[in-house]
Amino acid sequence: MIKISVLYPNKPGSHFDMGYYLSTHMPLAMRLLAKGLRKTEVDAGIQGAKPGEPPAFFGGCQFYFDSIEAFSAAWTAAAPELSTDIPKYTNVAPIIQFNEVKLSL
Amino acid sequence: MIKISVLYPNKPGSHFDMGYYLSTHMPLAMRLLAKGLRKTEVDAGIQGAKPGEPPAFFGGCQFYFDSIEAFSAAWTAAAPELSTDIPKYTNVAPIIQFNEVKLSL
Repeated sequence: MIKISVLYPNKPGSHFDMGYYLSTHMPLAMRLLAKGLRKTEVDAGIQGAKPGEPPAFFGGCQFYFDSIEAFSAAWTAAAPELSTDIPKYTNVAPIIQFNEVKLSL
Repeated sequence: MIKISVLYPNKPGSHFDMGYYLSTHMPLAMRLLAKGLRKTEVDAGIQGAKPGEPPAFFGGCQFYFDSIEAFSAAWTAAAPELSTDIPKYTNVAPIIQFNEVKLSL
């Protein structure tokens, strides 16, 4: 299983509207990426390693697909609309990474 | 649900032994953190946003607990042994973050 991780860095001076992300952007993303999408998880950052320490990331999401190819097929059609939506909730570029899920239990 | 995310940055000159991490460190972590641990996921980084682009993180894991307090109770006893094991597979300090899982489906 492939997990595409999208993380928004909590940089000084940056902003992230978690309300919009949860209510509007992620439902849009899940609809546009629906073909082949096995699972979606959305996280909101609480803190860093210690209480009171700001989280490194505002939060983000993980999309689970069977393969990179399956994600890419869905992403090509979805990218223009999703990319246009990003400035509505943040001014930071996400860190995007493809992972192989080695263990899930 | 709380997700503790542990990510190992893929810095220039750093190393990460995924074999040791999967075969030895993660089983140890899951055993030592077992009380209250709801789920564990382990990822191996494949690439960044584009093919051929190195992943921002070698990989890492996510521990799911009911609350920060439940994790902290397990972590206090486990920390010495787990921390001692880290230099056996990497020379980078992980980025640790507490998240609230807002959506999982």
